[in-house]
Amino acid sequence: MIHRQDGNVIVCKIEKDEDVFQSIENLAKIYGINAGIIVSGIGMLKNFEIGYYNGRDYEKKFMEKNHELVAMHGSIASDDPKIHIHVGLAGPDHSIIGGHLLSAKADPFVELTVIKVSGKFSRIYNEKTGLKELNVL
Amino acid sequence: MIHRQDGNVIVCKIEKDEDVFQSIENLAKIYGINAGIIVSGIGMLKNFEIGYYNGRDYEKKFMEKNHELVAMHGSIASDDPKIHIHVGLAGPDHSIIGGHLLSAKADPFVELTVIKVSGKFSRIYNEKTGLKELNVL
Amino acid sequence: MIHRQDGNVIVCKIEKDEDVFQSIENLAKIYGINAGIIVSGIGMLKNFEIGYYNGRDYEKKFMEKNHELVAMHGSIASDDPKIHIHVGLAGPDHSIIGGHLLSAKADPFVELTVIKVSGKFSRIYNEKTGLKELNVL
Repeated sequence: MIHRQDGNVIVCKIEKDEDVFQSIENLAKIYGINAGIIVSGIGMLKNFEIGYYNGRDYEKKFMEKNHELVAMHGSIASDDPKIHIHVGLAGPDHSIIGGHLLSAKADPFVELTVIKVSGKFSRIYNEKTGLKELNVL
Repeated sequence: MIHRQDGNVIVCKIEKDEDVFQSIENLAKIYGINAGIIVSGIGMLKNFEIGYYNGRDYEKKFMEKNHELVAMHGSIASDDPKIHIHVGLAGPDHSIIGGHLLSAKADPFVELTVIKVSGKFSRIYNEKTGLKELNVL
Repeated sequence: MIHRQDGNVIVCKIEKDEDVFQSIENLAKIYGINAGIIVSGIGMLKNFEIGYYNGRDYEKKFMEKNHELVAMHGSIASDDPKIHIHVGLAGPDHSIIGGHLLSAKADPFVELTVIKVSGKFSRIYNEKTGLKELNVL
């Protein structure tokens, strides 16, 4: 991973075969990101798992094959789950699948941009939804 | 809705069953946003209507079922239509639909980020296209 | 094209029939962008070509018909290829296609937002991937 900061904007390139979540956790450590928003992510992912939340748990789909990353957004918090990402991914026939991202590797790379926000975001368990939800306060 | 500002970046979480357009209008009032860009939106939408503009009007599709929000971008202006949003949404089979967003509710929530721009954006009617279009000047 | 800057945020509207890549190159010249991130793009594209990188070259698809632009992200560098863009696009039936954007025209318009980053991004040829890749350092 290579990375650079300009004010509250942090740009990085996740290299081939690097784990996406581990790379973003590393980025958060390097730049002290306790609150952040992923505002852009392009490149390609492989060995990724996406999920659809049905109100109880995630209906998952794993794909080994490289897909073009056309949408990648999310939040970085100080509490687990630190990183919450949704993606849209285009395959060889240009059709798109997507959802909540559970795991992924970059291949050949991912260009990622994070806006760092002052203070801390946390995640608070919500009994009604069964999810640990973003708290921006 | 919970929300926080850090410089020109405003992050909010729209809560379960809250209307997306009403929530963003409220956010615009609270932070005096007369010009803004939605740079990230994840979570899930339900009871949403999306449209495809065919050059005369919108070909619409309404869906009740919750979908994972994988892309949400748009502009906030001081004139009607104040809020212009496009979305990409993944269903239970992880396939994606999308287009111009006409209405939606959050469920279980939407994490939304807006960059506030100084001054005002307006919308000006364009006879050639039949649309009220963004004026950034 | 109409455009405005507020700090490191540049917002523009690409007008009907204007070329998307030429417009962004012009924007980069006007504002001296040698490093930038496309954080939002909505509107519609026509006469666009998208590609899927199979490890050797792009599997391409050209479409004449207007599509709703639901995701548009990318990077602006000082070296060729100056502009790297991925898109997600919804057709009349609201299904979405996407990938690496090779060419496109706006119709009726594209609302585009770029965050300008200080210094320069370059592209460096990577023998392993066969691609000129983003260097943020």
